[in-house]
Amino acid sequence: MAENPNTPIRPTDDAARALAQSLIAAARHGALGVIDPACGFPMVTRVAIGTDMAGAPLTFISTLSAHTRALTADPRASLLVGEPGAKGDPLTHPRLTLLARATQVTDGSDHDALAARWLDQHPKAKLYIGFTDFSFWRFAVTEAHLNGGFGRAFVLTAQDIAAPPMI
Amino acid sequence: MAENPNTPIRPTDDAARALAQSLIAAARHGALGVIDPACGFPMVTRVAIGTDMAGAPLTFISTLSAHTRALTADPRASLLVGEPGAKGDPLTHPRLTLLARATQVTDGSDHDALAARWLDQHPKAKLYIGFTDFSFWRFAVTEAHLNGGFGRAFVLTAQDIAAPPMI
Repeated sequence: MAENPNTPIRPTDDAARALAQSLIAAARHGALGVIDPACGFPMVTRVAIGTDMAGAPLTFISTLSAHTRALTADPRASLLVGEPGAKGDPLTHPRLTLLARATQVTDGSDHDALAARWLDQHPKAKLYIGFTDFSFWRFAVTEAHLNGGFGRAFVLTAQDIAAPPMI
Repeated sequence: MAENPNTPIRPTDDAARALAQSLIAAARHGALGVIDPACGFPMVTRVAIGTDMAGAPLTFISTLSAHTRALTADPRASLLVGEPGAKGDPLTHPRLTLLARATQVTDGSDHDALAARWLDQHPKAKLYIGFTDFSFWRFAVTEAHLNGGFGRAFVLTAQDIAAPPMI
């Protein structure tokens, strides 16, 4: 038996902030965690992920889905972004865990602006962008955990992960 | 605006059961959802996933990690398995959400048998299989949600996803 030589949490630096911001900006899908209102268990599903004009993460989901019902009952959510894609070891690939409050976008003009941006980020969404049961949910991040690879862990604040506005 | 033509939940059939079982058997990593004991938010992280001799899902995680501290405080968990890998659209690739109670493996002989199997499933784990802060956690599934691709959703019981024992 050996001691794990890795320090669990490292001091936050600009490289960690930049990596976290780039993982959010590049995310096109990820894992959404919600609280199941029936049993209180966490429930993790795969969802499409994009960003709004200010760089905040959002998703576009159906009210028919279990995760949307859960967010309606309890806005506390988590997002895991940083998919390894075709290359690389999934367990050493950098990823970011966000804790966030989710809010449904109910304003029509806000929806329309997000829909145009969403279609740029997700061309296949044209198949369901007009479905009446789908809506945008925006995530206000409260805390983030960055895993930059085995043993490279950081705890980031909402301010750390707030990227400059993107056009 | 168009109506979504997809029925949200389909009746469970043998094909759905077989798909769910194969997603668990093939999983080598996935997204773990836990409840953060400090704030009650769900928290999703990427973990290595394998199976025990009876086919039950398990992970091998460090007590230094936030997810292990969370599971120690509250065993309610979720696992998302069914990674798209190099090919395929992540949002149409089949995936499975498990709700489960997690239990730390504390029995030494159980640990040793699992470690041998884990190394077969995760050859790179030899780097940390002996770390004293790592332990196995086994997941007893209570409910499962199968998404076989856009609009192909099933709710499965623990019995539905229990695979025959694997050697």
